Amino acid sequence: MSILVVGSVAFDTIATPSGSVQDILGGAATYFSLAASYFTDVRVVAVVGEDFLPQHEAVLTRRGVDTRGIERAAGKTFRWGGQYLDNLNEAKTDFTDLNVFEKFQPRIPKEYLDTPFLFLANIHPALQTAVRLEMDGVKLTGGDTMNFWIKGTPKDLAATLKLVNVLLINDTETKMLAAEKNLLRAANKVLAMGPKALVVKHGEYGATIFFREGAFGIGSHPFRAPALPIDEVKDPTGAGDSFAGGFMGYIASQGEINREVLKRALFYGGVMGSFAVERFGTERLQNLTRGEIDARFQVFRELTHLE
Amino acid sequence: MSILVVGSVAFDTIATPSGSVQDILGGAATYFSLAASYFTDVRVVAVVGEDFLPQHEAVLTRRGVDTRGIERAAGKTFRWGGQYLDNLNEAKTDFTDLNVFEKFQPRIPKEYLDTPFLFLANIHPALQTAVRLEMDGVKLTGGDTMNFWIKGTPKDLAATLKLVNVLLINDTETKMLAAEKNLLRAANKVLAMGPKALVVKHGEYGATIFFREGAFGIGSHPFRAPALPIDEVKDPTGAGDSFAGGFMGYIASQGEINREVLKRALFYGGVMGSFAVERFGTERLQNLTRGEIDARFQVFRELTHLE
Repeated sequence: MSILVVGSVAFDTIATPSGSVQDILGGAATYFSLAASYFTDVRVVAVVGEDFLPQHEAVLTRRGVDTRGIERAAGKTFRWGGQYLDNLNEAKTDFTDLNVFEKFQPRIPKEYLDTPFLFLANIHPALQTAVRLEMDGVKLTGGDTMNFWIKGTPKDLAATLKLVNVLLINDTETKMLAAEKNLLRAANKVLAMGPKALVVKHGEYGATIFFREGAFGIGSHPFRAPALPIDEVKDPTGAGDSFAGGFMGYIASQGEINREVLKRALFYGGVMGSFAVERFGTERLQNLTRGEIDARFQVFRELTHLE
Repeated sequence: MSILVVGSVAFDTIATPSGSVQDILGGAATYFSLAASYFTDVRVVAVVGEDFLPQHEAVLTRRGVDTRGIERAAGKTFRWGGQYLDNLNEAKTDFTDLNVFEKFQPRIPKEYLDTPFLFLANIHPALQTAVRLEMDGVKLTGGDTMNFWIKGTPKDLAATLKLVNVLLINDTETKMLAAEKNLLRAANKVLAMGPKALVVKHGEYGATIFFREGAFGIGSHPFRAPALPIDEVKDPTGAGDSFAGGFMGYIASQGEINREVLKRALFYGGVMGSFAVERFGTERLQNLTRGEIDARFQVFRELTHLE
């Protein structure tokens, strides 16, 4: 079944110990779409400026992504600059030029309204809420957020969390959102805010999914997927969005939601994140095969599998 | 088969967000012995002072630990004080009174010399080397070390690493020892220093075992065991030594060393570490049953197991 992602398309300028790149195609919706496109049909709602050229759109359409929801606005596309020179686990932002993204008001094309799966990438929670309310028939909503909204717009975020079924954030965001240092207790507090499931991304250590008691009828034991130790992380940008794309894309491809599907989805999330960081920007995500993806899935499975 | 541990016995004064305790029995050899005692026969070589009373020794002997190798010296037992008030993942040391431990010269009782498994807990690497060279018939040697020796006595440590088959250290120590920020590359550099296998402990995220190519005839793919998210870490002291006790104790109990044994050992290490932190000091490790241990092993297995 198809999935709709609403989020940013951007041009990124990135420096890492492996090199640097300027104005390459990025943004949460881009990484998410490419990663999810290996599993299911993907539709995207975003805004770009006049500098978004056919060659950029082709990156998405070559992967079969439906780009009719990408709005063209007068001005420049969102630009972000950051570096990971000291620490590959945390970006130091050099600049954020919101440009056309500043006034982004997601408009859902009529033909998208029946999309059964929805992912609300990291945008203002009031916009996330508005999108979700417009999508009447949605079966499962995933969402992301960040420290900026947790601290800056807590009321808007609280409203969004009541509508998000699966929230995907990292350890620091989980603890900040719950105002609680212990991860398990923090996760339970976040689940009490609305989501049925919480995926906490641990970076190089994988991810854990926590369930609200009775959610999806599958019990409340958490499940953890490892991440592969990688010998060179070229560019961590987009790893979390690629994780979300693999996770949500796999769920959408299965239609049915049960414990085993969610477990496998967590592994596929890690797999797509691990591919994303192997090259700068979206390069690696543009040219994968499902065979490569499933081979790495097996490697991840073997990494923790006891007979 | 039996295992010999050489290391510290101490009295610890600890403050954590859950409370504080004074002068309770601790030390690497103590945690290791108790954890390993659930799997196999344990012998211990350590030094204590006149303040080490029959009630302290009974903590070990009640678990069947052979304490004939604990030397009594004039003076006080090693004392350590630390707190985890800000960060449960890292101790802030308040004081270190080495006392009788300062002049510790491990003496291996004759009846211990044929012990097939050996664990060199965190002591001066020159002492680790001396012990290992005395133990002619040892089948497998595990070892620990820390930043203090990595920076302070690199040559002595290099000699020790040539004699240690399985090194158990944490992420920070691995990267420091290899002078390399990437974990996989750091692990490979450490393996080139001597050990056939390297266990990197990730705290709340579990542990990964890396293998030197061809080591134990089992290929070189790493294996990762998760850790259980715990809702209250009362006292992290000794978690790493308890991990080592579970890991080495399980291997010693199997006799044979193969990939499946090492994988299960990594899980048992995590299990024993997770029990240790549930209570202050060694309290939880004193009164476990093998049934409780195996039940938690199953929980850990389920935590990452795909059908």
